[in-house]
Amino acid sequence: MKKLMNKPEDFSRETIEGIILAHPECLKMVDNNFRCVVRADERKPGKVAIATGGGSGHLPTFLGYVGYGLADGVTVGNVFASPSAEAMYEVDKAIDNGAGVLHLYGRYGGDLMNFGMAADLASMDDIRVEEVLVTDDVASAPKGEEDKRRGVAGLFYAYKTAGAAAEKMYSLDEVKRIAQKTVDNTRTMGVALSSCTVPEAGKPTFTISDDEMEIGMGIHGEPGIERTKLKTNDEVVEIMLNKIIEDLPFEEGAEVSVLVNGLGATPLEELYIAYRKVYEILDGKGIKIYRNYIGEFATSMEMAGMSLTLLKLDDELKEMLDFKAYSPFFKQDQK
Amino acid sequence: MKKLMNKPEDFSRETIEGIILAHPECLKMVDNNFRCVVRADERKPGKVAIATGGGSGHLPTFLGYVGYGLADGVTVGNVFASPSAEAMYEVDKAIDNGAGVLHLYGRYGGDLMNFGMAADLASMDDIRVEEVLVTDDVASAPKGEEDKRRGVAGLFYAYKTAGAAAEKMYSLDEVKRIAQKTVDNTRTMGVALSSCTVPEAGKPTFTISDDEMEIGMGIHGEPGIERTKLKTNDEVVEIMLNKIIEDLPFEEGAEVSVLVNGLGATPLEELYIAYRKVYEILDGKGIKIYRNYIGEFATSMEMAGMSLTLLKLDDELKEMLDFKAYSPFFKQDQK
Repeated sequence: MKKLMNKPEDFSRETIEGIILAHPECLKMVDNNFRCVVRADERKPGKVAIATGGGSGHLPTFLGYVGYGLADGVTVGNVFASPSAEAMYEVDKAIDNGAGVLHLYGRYGGDLMNFGMAADLASMDDIRVEEVLVTDDVASAPKGEEDKRRGVAGLFYAYKTAGAAAEKMYSLDEVKRIAQKTVDNTRTMGVALSSCTVPEAGKPTFTISDDEMEIGMGIHGEPGIERTKLKTNDEVVEIMLNKIIEDLPFEEGAEVSVLVNGLGATPLEELYIAYRKVYEILDGKGIKIYRNYIGEFATSMEMAGMSLTLLKLDDELKEMLDFKAYSPFFKQDQK
Repeated sequence: MKKLMNKPEDFSRETIEGIILAHPECLKMVDNNFRCVVRADERKPGKVAIATGGGSGHLPTFLGYVGYGLADGVTVGNVFASPSAEAMYEVDKAIDNGAGVLHLYGRYGGDLMNFGMAADLASMDDIRVEEVLVTDDVASAPKGEEDKRRGVAGLFYAYKTAGAAAEKMYSLDEVKRIAQKTVDNTRTMGVALSSCTVPEAGKPTFTISDDEMEIGMGIHGEPGIERTKLKTNDEVVEIMLNKIIEDLPFEEGAEVSVLVNGLGATPLEELYIAYRKVYEILDGKGIKIYRNYIGEFATSMEMAGMSLTLLKLDDELKEMLDFKAYSPFFKQDQK
């Protein structure tokens, strides 16, 4: 796969420069440092702040979810590489409104270590920091070890619900509780058809034959649970959705939100073909779709493939999901 | 490139079924025919209706621009194939509010013929039909023969401005005038890095070496103006933008809207790297960016590449561009 880029080492900086030039009314850097990006709109004193971050290459994750009803700041790493603890600490200081900061991010080794160090630094400044790890990827660890799983497209739901709670001026403990409840009720499975290319590597992260796909592959190319001959869209959806459904489990009578996410190179047409089958299967099991999201929400550069995510809803999570949200990358009116 | 699909011949139907299941509050079929999709919200008697259509495989073009402040109905062909005149005529009948219909679409042979026949059929029902062809692709015919050019991502601007005028209850003549003025002031250039695969063909539409790109290629793989070694993002932007600027021409003091469009497989990161250079070049020439759009607006399945579009604005076009628009695929608040 060929890339439209300049020097590989400038990839993340130039991306952020483009974003800030395009959306100055929404986003700004902290101290001219492209690694630290925060909301540019008016601050609300006493509002809990939400910080996120991680490697680049997943737009709209993570930076795309900095906005009203979502997160307040993001730390930007190089492609697929964790940003530094110092940069995370700078974001914490920049976004704290006196009510504390929730670190909300996907469970990856480098990010875990660096967000931990940033929390220590912030606490020395008397900024209270709590943490919720998103761990929605069913393929990354077996049932019973949910807390060892990676975070993938389900991150979106955690931003959406926790962001709404923060905007409603809930306390840090309450925002954390809602984020954790969201994670506990979110399950994702992905499938990859082709590799992506990290700019600094200059070649595909992994190889996969023209007639193969890998079910359960992670968004950085982490091994999945099965490499198999190419199946139909319907077959892929059935395999992935059944694994998701039995994992939580999602049962008859449940109300869910469905997220059909493109990993980068998969046409929107194919995501809707998948949604058609998701709808049919859930309908057959008596599981009701309350709200759907279909498009690119967490990508892996130009990887071909998709992921399916279900979030099991109760009245509180519905209220948070229905809350208005606004960023340059995601817009939703209040229901 | 591998596809997530079922039977190739079901690709367009299954796509539309998924879309209607996902967005029943916004879109519906006419007489259960997936080839004819119209707005599902309340009709405004006396409002000019806008019909569009063309082959599938370009989402969000065309169907994604059926909504408030945009078009009213779309006719859906197979991938890269024109829909029939009969289906277009069914859409005309379904959306006419008594004020006439504007056929607004990209200039391609099959669509020209079929929309023409549909207009004849509609006129026999006393539905007044006018037509505006979008012809923004600078690479597809030389200066002086602008009316022979193809329509590409600039379609978006024609929907946006004509759709706003229709929503403001302008007459058919006025909606047509605004659509034509938009087309007259819109210029696009694209670059392709890889081919797409049409489902029914099952193999890439064209071949291109791993170290090559084609500047000016059309969104169905039509030949461009130059096949060249892979250049940097900055170089590609400079070549394409200069051709656009000199074509209209866009001159110092002009106000423009910029659209940086991904063709399918190009990461959003790379589109923002391009926007950074667009901004620098326009700023250097004293051309002011009034509003930007960055993302996937007109795709070519999973083609890697992008297009740049400029629209030269006056006060009237700014007013139309700032008007609220809403579809499942495109949301913009009133400025």
